[in-house]
Amino acid sequence: MRSPGRRYPRPPAIGGTRRRIGQCPRADTTIYLEVALSVGPSGPANPAPSDSAALVHAVEQALTRFFDSRRELVAELGPVFVSATTALEEFVLRGGKRTRPSFAWTGWLGAGGDPTGPHAEAVLTACSALELVQACALIHDDIIDSSRTRRGFPTVHVDFEDRHRTRSWGGDPAHFGASVAILVGDLALTWADDMVAAAGLDPAARARFAVVWAAMRTEVMGGQLLDVHGEAGADDSVAAALRINRYKTAAYTVERPLHLGAALAGADPELIAAYREFGTDIGIAFQLRDDLLGVFGDPAVTGKPSGDDLREGKRTVLVAEALRRADSTDPEAARRLRTCLGTDLDAEQVTGLREIITDLGAVDDVERRISELTERGLTALASSSVAPDAGARLRAMALAATRRVA
Amino acid sequence: MRSPGRRYPRPPAIGGTRRRIGQCPRADTTIYLEVALSVGPSGPANPAPSDSAALVHAVEQALTRFFDSRRELVAELGPVFVSATTALEEFVLRGGKRTRPSFAWTGWLGAGGDPTGPHAEAVLTACSALELVQACALIHDDIIDSSRTRRGFPTVHVDFEDRHRTRSWGGDPAHFGASVAILVGDLALTWADDMVAAAGLDPAARARFAVVWAAMRTEVMGGQLLDVHGEAGADDSVAAALRINRYKTAAYTVERPLHLGAALAGADPELIAAYREFGTDIGIAFQLRDDLLGVFGDPAVTGKPSGDDLREGKRTVLVAEALRRADSTDPEAARRLRTCLGTDLDAEQVTGLREIITDLGAVDDVERRISELTERGLTALASSSVAPDAGARLRAMALAATRRVA
Repeated sequence: MRSPGRRYPRPPAIGGTRRRIGQCPRADTTIYLEVALSVGPSGPANPAPSDSAALVHAVEQALTRFFDSRRELVAELGPVFVSATTALEEFVLRGGKRTRPSFAWTGWLGAGGDPTGPHAEAVLTACSALELVQACALIHDDIIDSSRTRRGFPTVHVDFEDRHRTRSWGGDPAHFGASVAILVGDLALTWADDMVAAAGLDPAARARFAVVWAAMRTEVMGGQLLDVHGEAGADDSVAAALRINRYKTAAYTVERPLHLGAALAGADPELIAAYREFGTDIGIAFQLRDDLLGVFGDPAVTGKPSGDDLREGKRTVLVAEALRRADSTDPEAARRLRTCLGTDLDAEQVTGLREIITDLGAVDDVERRISELTERGLTALASSSVAPDAGARLRAMALAATRRVA
Repeated sequence: MRSPGRRYPRPPAIGGTRRRIGQCPRADTTIYLEVALSVGPSGPANPAPSDSAALVHAVEQALTRFFDSRRELVAELGPVFVSATTALEEFVLRGGKRTRPSFAWTGWLGAGGDPTGPHAEAVLTACSALELVQACALIHDDIIDSSRTRRGFPTVHVDFEDRHRTRSWGGDPAHFGASVAILVGDLALTWADDMVAAAGLDPAARARFAVVWAAMRTEVMGGQLLDVHGEAGADDSVAAALRINRYKTAAYTVERPLHLGAALAGADPELIAAYREFGTDIGIAFQLRDDLLGVFGDPAVTGKPSGDDLREGKRTVLVAEALRRADSTDPEAARRLRTCLGTDLDAEQVTGLREIITDLGAVDDVERRISELTERGLTALASSSVAPDAGARLRAMALAATRRVA
């Protein structure tokens, strides 16, 4: 097995900076997949967990270098801005398993990228910039979802709401917190671009990267817009739920990061097509697994109260499929689902809804979808020209993401 | 005088798409300067207003081409996303005098850019992308300021709040509207970058542009963060107000756009320094004029109720200067100012506060600052190597922005 130092441009520090899994409550799909990746199978064909840890560390070093490069400009604007950017830096470096950079980097390796070559550091930096896009997505999502905590800490808007209250400033603390968090998220989004621009990519690689980067960002904003409309009840069809899943999770988390890595390596169209098929299928299957865990997961393992997705009224494929089936076969079940979803259910009511969803056959349907998608994705990968080591790693990541129990 | 067709890569359509000034309520500094630019003095040394109109039209054509280039990707995500991006497109194309692109383009001309040369279209496209950064800034600012209308139309968050209410969707309409507007603003911010990336700049120009672009975006987010903190009352000093003014208005509206144009033309460091000094001074002077109009402006001319800045409790340099003077010479006046600012003042109370501010000498102080800044900025420009035609245009823009009465 290769030493971690051979695979990343900078050697990892002893111990790295990985967080305990216990610090990551099951709050969103991101963190879930990140956890899954770090506990994936290992063996001769699959890089050991220490390999993941080294990559996580290398990504965090790249992000730290970027934040360091901003200090002078930030200081010019004074202490208020310094404290806002410090909040962003802490948010970015505090946790997360760096899922998107990992897929992008592994995609680059699989397309022939040389981790010891002259382009490796620039590629790693560009891949790491995905974490700043993700920071914007999470910070803004937390405002949208009115979430109070993330990774065991107050969300950015709650943090600044608290600061406002502590200092007895004028105006509404919650509005102040949301305002600051909107701007901090905006800053993360612009800094993501700046980090790519300053990565040192050669112009041709930069141009190939830009096209995919543009598509990815539009897709994730689009996916989030669809999600916001979905939660408002604009469309509770299976097709709508799958579409949100496709763009908000699959494209943004797996497909486009792989595509970015391939674009950086100048991969041929066949490998890009295989990556995209693999990424879409595995990304959707991953989200479907998350949907099942959100309703049936063991709270002792997921870290979230049982059935929380039902209380939040999330319009997942699982729920949409149950509604679709109920509408055509069991109007009373359809009525109960629509009445109860998104309300403050007690344990008994959660058990009742679970039974309805299971009896309607929606769970079997989603399990079948997961199996089919995973098989199809892995077949696309296996039939591709991906480099063997990277291919094995991607396969392990896919299985960990779709078979997990937490 | 040159024909408009010579100065822009595409000839303007007859009549252009300029809006009546009456459609632009005095809502923010942006619109104000835009109005000022279109009514600036004309004569042999100053391009005629028809020149501005042609540039505005060329910018809008570039923006329209960009939106057209996105339709296929947008359609893939379905009708919900189409309607959100249509809202963004309408917002961007509905109005505004394209102040930032105008400064950037004129800065490029002044640094030797050839409007009939092979780079002109790419430069115009990159300059026009500033309008998408501005769209994000305005859309997010309207959430932060709880503004209900802009340019005579509902703000984006109010528009989607209304759609939610009309369709009787689930959840809180205001929260839905803000959520959509956060995401639409994010999309504008990412599209700004995409528009630059796709402009067709040569790699060297792109690299020079990227550095200034990065600084500008960080500064405007920083300026807005300072503003949000300032309104919460974190710091009511003159220095704090000047700092907000510097970053939120001067750097973002004049200095950096000129700098971007200069960078695209590969200008020498002396011209860049002169542009930056001119841009900072004129930008700050412009905002100081706006501060005076916000308290003393004629509502028949400004389109806003008299003394509205006092009711909103804006922490302008004018107010900060009045407070500073009152604190050292007239404690009763200081108490009255602090008690009344940001409350629902009647006409008599507004008159009373105006008298206090004037008697304290704050108005004279601000007028003196405006004169000194304008003179210093114009001197920097006059001593520079700026091309004569563009220099004359910049001088006219500066005078229009700092001497205006509305």
